[in-house]
Amino acid sequence: MAAERLVVIGGDAAGMSAASQARRLKGPDELSITAFERGHFTSYSACGIPYWVSGDVTERDDLIARTPEEHRARDIDLRTRTEVTEIDVAGRRVRALDRESGERYWTGFDKLVIATGARPVRPDLPGMDAAGVHGVQTLDDGQALLDSLDRTEGRRAVVVGAGYIGVEMAEAMLKRGFEVTVLNRGEQPMATLDPDMGRMVHDAMDGLGITTVNGAAVTAIRTGDDGRVTGVVTDGASYPADIVVLGIGVEPETALAREAGLPLGPHGGLLTDLAMRVQGHENIWAGGDCVEVLDLVAGHTRHIALGTHANKHGQVIGSNVGGGYGTFPGVVGTAVSKVCDLEIARTGLREKDARAVGLRYVTATIESTSRAGYYPDARPMTVKMIAEYRTGRLLGVQIVGREGAGKRVDVAAVALTARMTVEQMTALDLGYAPPFSPVWDPVLVAARKTVSVLRKAGTD
Amino acid sequence: MAAERLVVIGGDAAGMSAASQARRLKGPDELSITAFERGHFTSYSACGIPYWVSGDVTERDDLIARTPEEHRARDIDLRTRTEVTEIDVAGRRVRALDRESGERYWTGFDKLVIATGARPVRPDLPGMDAAGVHGVQTLDDGQALLDSLDRTEGRRAVVVGAGYIGVEMAEAMLKRGFEVTVLNRGEQPMATLDPDMGRMVHDAMDGLGITTVNGAAVTAIRTGDDGRVTGVVTDGASYPADIVVLGIGVEPETALAREAGLPLGPHGGLLTDLAMRVQGHENIWAGGDCVEVLDLVAGHTRHIALGTHANKHGQVIGSNVGGGYGTFPGVVGTAVSKVCDLEIARTGLREKDARAVGLRYVTATIESTSRAGYYPDARPMTVKMIAEYRTGRLLGVQIVGREGAGKRVDVAAVALTARMTVEQMTALDLGYAPPFSPVWDPVLVAARKTVSVLRKAGTD
Repeated sequence: MAAERLVVIGGDAAGMSAASQARRLKGPDELSITAFERGHFTSYSACGIPYWVSGDVTERDDLIARTPEEHRARDIDLRTRTEVTEIDVAGRRVRALDRESGERYWTGFDKLVIATGARPVRPDLPGMDAAGVHGVQTLDDGQALLDSLDRTEGRRAVVVGAGYIGVEMAEAMLKRGFEVTVLNRGEQPMATLDPDMGRMVHDAMDGLGITTVNGAAVTAIRTGDDGRVTGVVTDGASYPADIVVLGIGVEPETALAREAGLPLGPHGGLLTDLAMRVQGHENIWAGGDCVEVLDLVAGHTRHIALGTHANKHGQVIGSNVGGGYGTFPGVVGTAVSKVCDLEIARTGLREKDARAVGLRYVTATIESTSRAGYYPDARPMTVKMIAEYRTGRLLGVQIVGREGAGKRVDVAAVALTARMTVEQMTALDLGYAPPFSPVWDPVLVAARKTVSVLRKAGTD
Repeated sequence: MAAERLVVIGGDAAGMSAASQARRLKGPDELSITAFERGHFTSYSACGIPYWVSGDVTERDDLIARTPEEHRARDIDLRTRTEVTEIDVAGRRVRALDRESGERYWTGFDKLVIATGARPVRPDLPGMDAAGVHGVQTLDDGQALLDSLDRTEGRRAVVVGAGYIGVEMAEAMLKRGFEVTVLNRGEQPMATLDPDMGRMVHDAMDGLGITTVNGAAVTAIRTGDDGRVTGVVTDGASYPADIVVLGIGVEPETALAREAGLPLGPHGGLLTDLAMRVQGHENIWAGGDCVEVLDLVAGHTRHIALGTHANKHGQVIGSNVGGGYGTFPGVVGTAVSKVCDLEIARTGLREKDARAVGLRYVTATIESTSRAGYYPDARPMTVKMIAEYRTGRLLGVQIVGREGAGKRVDVAAVALTARMTVEQMTALDLGYAPPFSPVWDPVLVAARKTVSVLRKAGTD
């Protein structure tokens, strides 16, 4: 019997995790694996790019978990610089374009994995393609930015966007010795937080020497005679710039899937079932930044581009494709980031998310420290907690603080997954010793305060 | 109507948290509160003593959360240096001894809180009372040790015991410039870990310049002509010492309760119900280091002396005594500690605990890092996970590693509380960004490995 044919579109985290896991379960006699990647690289950490730009990570190759050659050595027919231009679902074949030779050809599949990732939102504005304007989505983007930094004598950087990528790139440019201005379309930086917590991020960035302008919608990039960027124009002002970094966010790269008639969700991502099969298709899987994931707290799908989800998807897909078993039940929306020593974390719903899905809630915000107050290097943090009115079920947690703040969000992530109430959380047996936590961990302090707010709201 | 009379025995975390919380709920017209404390201090962090001895914390008073005067200002009749010598349960009164004046008197109560704490295990061996031999249970002990360090010219310290107090005191003496030898009765240091993980602690302590001798049962303290300690004798050897620190552990201080006929458990601690009432007594509560707590994983009571539990107990007792409502459902056995930059954490059952309660299990141990491998200061850690055979339910986690390792145990603590399976844990949405975690958090890596061990054991 001929080997079953697996085709993978996309050579980064989700696609190559799927391919590798499938290969672990089935040898080449049983399963042939062909993977198409339009870029040069495979299995790299896009999340690591800001730290490569900042200089914290010195070698590009450090961000690469597994090279094309390593994949090939594991009997995966990996074709880099080769783009899939069409999926023929009924004919079970994909059309590929070799970007080196220009050759086009069809490849048949029995099973297909779509892992086409996300593309950066790049608004169609005058000057957007000028020299010195950079996205940071791929390793190629990062290399181009680093080369541009070498060529730039000016020291003024404008970062467009104040989400995770924006704030991380603000840190990176600061570390590179630039004066950094962040232009933020929203009311506060970090729109993934509530505005009251975003305000704290703003103030802390201020303290780090980063200028953040809120409510700033970019209308044009200004260029000089040499075609190089000289400034950024917003609806209200203009900002001189020697380099511009776009950190505006990403959207699912699903043009191929759309043309093939595969089901897309409200955020433009592919819709899958729990086994990560594309809905309605027994033999097509999808994972990573091109899919929508079920938000277990909100009860609907969202688009979240995050390497940790992509790796989990790949693992699940590879298990199922390889004859094993795996499911991806969904997410609770955990994310963590930092700007210099400022740590920012969130999980679950923001206030507006709760309202949007019809939940009534209470909130509580507390100040605490990372260690016992009397212990050296006890650093401050603010924890905001959101719980459902009446039931007291945890709905979300946001944390802004210094060293030791961010990963505390994991406690809330597990509690959300387990659908705990904040009353139950007050009794959690969290690790305590003075170098690690106050005697009441900040998350417990927040839970206690939320319980007391619930009581006052008459729900106890 | 006369105010109800609340009497509290013991002025540290559990007792004074209870008194304070009761006072918050009821004013002095409704509730009179009398608290007896045999020492000088109230509401202090005994867990902080090693860091005061080490010099990390410079002021003794930093360890005191609330002084006797502060309690008195909140209408609590706090009597320091006053010991309760008898509880008359039927007569609803306690007998007190004023240690300053020598006066003895009876005080009546309507409600009683017993928070008598724990006492250090101090084996009855020759020389145990010699000058230079110190426990570290109370602030007075800590002060005596610090005074002794000032008087000591020698630089050889022997720490007896290699549990949490022992290893923390080893760090403290090292920081004070002593050559440190730890004498450990058991097979490996940190008997709260499995021996394979304890072995890692041993090796790491070695690397820190601490000599650890396992299987060393102390038989005598050797003293000089001046009555001061000169060495420690074990059954196999002797160790010169200029100072000896006893960190052998504690047992519940329940002599009073025993004499009063109150119910004690197999570990000598008071037995309470979920509201922290002493079993069979409607008007007597107990909390802190003098009670046994329900281990939710093992299904039986244990004695765990830990400030974070004592504070929770006090909060629950104070709520109930003050006419509110609170319960303490139990613990999962979380503990975290450090020796210099070595972090040690555990939660749930060890292998021998699982065997002792009739559970069959599998284990998996993995190596990972605190941050993405390519990110600066990614530090190594080892995570051991134990899961129930067949059901795959998480039973315990142990972590030994460097900075960023210890508090990861909290994820497992919440998962234990929620009775999650390790398969469920593999999908946990934990915070990921390169400065905070590898793309697979070490706890997730451990869960995945445990799942794969379970499969091989034929339980999937």
